Amino acid sequence: MPGTKCATPAHKLNGHHSLALFFKIPCIDALQIVNKVLRGLRANFNWYNHYITFHDGVTVRNPMSVFATDRIEADYLVETAFPVDAAVAVMAGEQSSGTFVPLPGETAELKARSAARVERIDIVEEDVGDGPSLPGARHPGTGPVKRARVTLSWPVANIGPSLPNLMATVAGNLFELAQFSGLRILDIRLDQSFAAAYPGPKFGVEGTRRLAMVDNGPLIGTIVKPSVGLGPSETAALVTRLAEAGIDFIKDDELQSDGPACPFEDRVKAVSQAIERHAERTGKRVMFAFNLTGDLDQMRRRHDFVVSHGGTCVMASLNSVGLVGMIELGCHAELPIHAHRNGWGYLSRHPLLGWSYIAWQKLWRLAGADHMHVNGLDNKFCEANDSVIASARQCLTPLWPDKPCIAMPVFSSGQSALQPPETFRLLQSTDLIYAAGGGIMAHPDGPAAGVESLRSAWEAAVSGTPLEEQARRDRALARAIEAYS
Amino acid sequence: MPGTKCATPAHKLNGHHSLALFFKIPCIDALQIVNKVLRGLRANFNWYNHYITFHDGVTVRNPMSVFATDRIEADYLVETAFPVDAAVAVMAGEQSSGTFVPLPGETAELKARSAARVERIDIVEEDVGDGPSLPGARHPGTGPVKRARVTLSWPVANIGPSLPNLMATVAGNLFELAQFSGLRILDIRLDQSFAAAYPGPKFGVEGTRRLAMVDNGPLIGTIVKPSVGLGPSETAALVTRLAEAGIDFIKDDELQSDGPACPFEDRVKAVSQAIERHAERTGKRVMFAFNLTGDLDQMRRRHDFVVSHGGTCVMASLNSVGLVGMIELGCHAELPIHAHRNGWGYLSRHPLLGWSYIAWQKLWRLAGADHMHVNGLDNKFCEANDSVIASARQCLTPLWPDKPCIAMPVFSSGQSALQPPETFRLLQSTDLIYAAGGGIMAHPDGPAAGVESLRSAWEAAVSGTPLEEQARRDRALARAIEAYS
Repeated sequence: MPGTKCATPAHKLNGHHSLALFFKIPCIDALQIVNKVLRGLRANFNWYNHYITFHDGVTVRNPMSVFATDRIEADYLVETAFPVDAAVAVMAGEQSSGTFVPLPGETAELKARSAARVERIDIVEEDVGDGPSLPGARHPGTGPVKRARVTLSWPVANIGPSLPNLMATVAGNLFELAQFSGLRILDIRLDQSFAAAYPGPKFGVEGTRRLAMVDNGPLIGTIVKPSVGLGPSETAALVTRLAEAGIDFIKDDELQSDGPACPFEDRVKAVSQAIERHAERTGKRVMFAFNLTGDLDQMRRRHDFVVSHGGTCVMASLNSVGLVGMIELGCHAELPIHAHRNGWGYLSRHPLLGWSYIAWQKLWRLAGADHMHVNGLDNKFCEANDSVIASARQCLTPLWPDKPCIAMPVFSSGQSALQPPETFRLLQSTDLIYAAGGGIMAHPDGPAAGVESLRSAWEAAVSGTPLEEQARRDRALARAIEAYS
Repeated sequence: MPGTKCATPAHKLNGHHSLALFFKIPCIDALQIVNKVLRGLRANFNWYNHYITFHDGVTVRNPMSVFATDRIEADYLVETAFPVDAAVAVMAGEQSSGTFVPLPGETAELKARSAARVERIDIVEEDVGDGPSLPGARHPGTGPVKRARVTLSWPVANIGPSLPNLMATVAGNLFELAQFSGLRILDIRLDQSFAAAYPGPKFGVEGTRRLAMVDNGPLIGTIVKPSVGLGPSETAALVTRLAEAGIDFIKDDELQSDGPACPFEDRVKAVSQAIERHAERTGKRVMFAFNLTGDLDQMRRRHDFVVSHGGTCVMASLNSVGLVGMIELGCHAELPIHAHRNGWGYLSRHPLLGWSYIAWQKLWRLAGADHMHVNGLDNKFCEANDSVIASARQCLTPLWPDKPCIAMPVFSSGQSALQPPETFRLLQSTDLIYAAGGGIMAHPDGPAAGVESLRSAWEAAVSGTPLEEQARRDRALARAIEAYS
């Protein structure tokens, strides 16, 4: 098992460890610093200080301090009956140096140093017409309700490269401002200091493929169903059945972590044995994402238990553990982390409130998520297909050129052999997990035919063969089309 | 400083430690167990097991297992165009043993053991009339859009007493179900096993009053403003000024934790000195809530730094740290935790989506929050007054009779001397923190008059004296009424 360590935040590095970072920014100060460090001189400094003072008393400019001039950006969709620029100015004030009356301490210099800046306002609708989207907003008395796309920026120096504090800055009190009858965060852009401060996914696409032994095409996956109710040995029996059906990946349900009716350790033991036995017979080791969601000590202990039993994946519910939980798990993990987004609906379902997945998934990838759920085409929930594809595409888009933090998108919810062609046509990638429940287990000829039908549908998708044509050569696919259409 | 330790979850207790728990449930089995434990016999068991097997092989019924028959309940407001009972059955299925097709493993016995149960459906609107509240919902083709109040329950045995897993169970995938054009969680009721598993607030009202040296009436508080931009010494200067003005409580802004422009430790040092100097002069030690929001190690280190500098309160942003972060902080903390709810708007602003504060605040109190933000009457945000008061009332309502977990409600946002009478009339309590920014700093006669006007307004409120009458005796109040009306 690879033992990748958590990346040390840049501000915890001492001079020696920082050498590599310095070499990225060659300048006279950097050379001075390198010289001093090579001579064994130590210095206390933070990445954000403009100057570094060495123990011999010499002070030089910190070449890393270019970061201190960098800014965080966030895009929003807003709806307001007020003049848009005035309303957005309130938003920027609330999220930086503002209060409802001017205070003695607020100098122009202070504002220049710390204020959020309105970078851009694009009116997208001059008159919404059918009234405010959310209740509680004030109305200035005249003027139509307008919608705009807005970009704000903040100096990184306001918070430093801290994900929890980023959250309060880009997504804090602003959703409650009475100037707005709609406010949704659409995207965020973080500077390089965040890349240095957090590990990001340790496995991503390549590491997952290696551990799941799948070189090409999507990982064909499934979920342990029923969601809750199976004991450890019943779960293991299901795993054996699915392994024999040719599955690549199985995940626990998000409702099942360490319930008394199916204790985590007993489940890991039973399932690992089943996977091991199948691997001995066939050489294929199915990846199982054990849901270790819980308090921190529990998660660490459960993670280590999975490692000691030869497991290859763990799973956590993001909204259950929160950012700090995920950051800690990300640092601790020696296995890919399958990140479940249950609860996503309350963050996103109203189109003029909350979070777009484009913004939200960035935080969790940086914290260490290797797999991110994105729903699936024609799902049983209420998300539209274009939103699903936009989410998946984002997970496969690098955060930074030299630190891409790619997470494998996980398609699930009502998936069967029917959706692969359209999924591939829109995404143009097979770096994904394609998870089906009933789409495998309820195949009329059994789970093996279910798995076969999915692989066949993906082969057709990638080669550009129409599904019906492929179905003429493949009975499992033909039967699946019949059953799920 | 009191060093209360985190309560050990019941399932981690060994026989000896559990004695006290057993004595609560006297029965023949409990006596047998006590006998065996007193004889030094050990047994491995979990709180949820129906039977305990001792090392001498004897098996007895576990009196604690009454918990295993207990259930978690949650209330929801739902909106659907489908027959309500059919839609709610889907909801219960999604959050327990369901999938979109019946599966081989789903036996009647398993369902009986694990399924969520629909406890109650009350139709509150037979025909909403103006169409679905949220987009994306399916419509069966006929029938009006209805609203109902619904109660579901789950066996505790599905998840055990785990807050993170509770989150996935009561507030997981259900918000996205296409059967619903509205779904909001209104309340949750947890069984006693949760009380045993988490510490709850360690200080609450009494501990906060002791540390803040305020025996009666609300703590009069304020926020460091401008939110960001002040350095450590500027912050300390402001603290001195506020202390001299007679303040009880000051909090960092949620946008300021450990930003490079105002490093946490430098701020703690400077502010603590200011507080100490004032305490030496006057005997009054102002409570300052240092915002330690960050990664886990940072939060622990910062907490310890505050303790070592004689501080009396720390603050964390709940949506920034998440449940695991808060649980860890709750276990670690030796000081009251001031819990900030910034971001609450994205969880709650649409009346048919997300979370009611009644449900949400219970999770955080159990995790350890001593102070919970509730907004204020006539606030600058868009929350209505009845919602503010309902939130505050809940924070002061016991979670369990023998483990009340009371958190002090924190009133803030646009507060001045104007709101205390109505706040007290509706809440009938002064166990709260009343925080004003401009309501103190922008008082025409300065901050001391600002603080005085607030105390005077609260005295009037409690004694039932009309504000105008009180103002005739108190110039600071009279001037405040003039300035803020």
